[in-house]
Amino acid sequence: MSVLPEVLAANDAYAESFGEKSELALPPARGFAILTCMDARLDPAKYAGLAEGDAHVIRNAGGRASDDAIRSLVISYKLLGTKEWFVIHHSDCGMEFFTDEVIRGLLANSLETAALGEDGFHDVGTGPGSREGDYIDWLTIADQAVSVTEDVRRIKSHPLVPAGIPVHGYIYDVKTGRLVEVPTATEAGRAA
Amino acid sequence: MSVLPEVLAANDAYAESFGEKSELALPPARGFAILTCMDARLDPAKYAGLAEGDAHVIRNAGGRASDDAIRSLVISYKLLGTKEWFVIHHSDCGMEFFTDEVIRGLLANSLETAALGEDGFHDVGTGPGSREGDYIDWLTIADQAVSVTEDVRRIKSHPLVPAGIPVHGYIYDVKTGRLVEVPTATEAGRAA
Repeated sequence: MSVLPEVLAANDAYAESFGEKSELALPPARGFAILTCMDARLDPAKYAGLAEGDAHVIRNAGGRASDDAIRSLVISYKLLGTKEWFVIHHSDCGMEFFTDEVIRGLLANSLETAALGEDGFHDVGTGPGSREGDYIDWLTIADQAVSVTEDVRRIKSHPLVPAGIPVHGYIYDVKTGRLVEVPTATEAGRAA
Repeated sequence: MSVLPEVLAANDAYAESFGEKSELALPPARGFAILTCMDARLDPAKYAGLAEGDAHVIRNAGGRASDDAIRSLVISYKLLGTKEWFVIHHSDCGMEFFTDEVIRGLLANSLETAALGEDGFHDVGTGPGSREGDYIDWLTIADQAVSVTEDVRRIKSHPLVPAGIPVHGYIYDVKTGRLVEVPTATEAGRAA
């Protein structure tokens, strides 16, 4: 069963009442950007109070400061004028439950979806798999406060990021919906 | 003026009425993922009808099938069970208004935000800049239908992507809020 008809029906309803959103400008009206995880439970527009047109939202597995996230952030400020950034990881993140070694092994065994048990992910597929995963840095997370701090530090020290951009580090709590500050990231986010 | 107090106030209000969302499971309940642009005017939860917990959302500049987007998509299906993906670029995308050569030149000149005039971006900063941008593929877009088709094709032909996952290619129209199918991407998305 494809989700396509449901998605298109929801889109129809959205477009029907689109109204003045057709007049929104390309640069983010509130001049900021959020880098956060792709996790289905997170809705950055809701948890940070964004209307359409307000802010750039960059999302990947973990909300990591990957090269691609840096590409997006640089475009965000250099061409579209954002002046303030957030790095927001979250509790109960899937990226905590495996390592490079684990996912490489799972992918080498089969391309089918693995099962998550008490003892972590284990493969239920019958193959064939691929060793292509050996060449990917999966950017897994051992500790959210550490990953947020490392990512804020990476962004702040990147040669294409101007010193004046504040980068705030937070963890979103999936049990409460609350953003919790990461003090070590705040320190890293202030450094020039 | 920092946006931080506004963001935290909005988050407080969201957390106050969080309710049963604290019970949401880690794997996406509706089993799909959307790859789309970071553009501020796009709200994938609204334009595709997502509630918290429904689907993975991956976003970067352009909604491109970068290596990092592939990393995220592979984690999405292999560990968290998504079975259907969307690639959604959009009209009036900032990625259409420059080339690698343009942004590299702008960044080499200064790290300050450029101005967008009738004739494209031009620098108003006084430096110093950085040549680090020369080493980044900015993944700019000349034609949305082409970029969507190329990205769907890249995803479908990636060695870590199983043949059975449908990948739908669409363009979001920022003037109407409507998702418009890209037929060439649909073809590419069906191929094994």
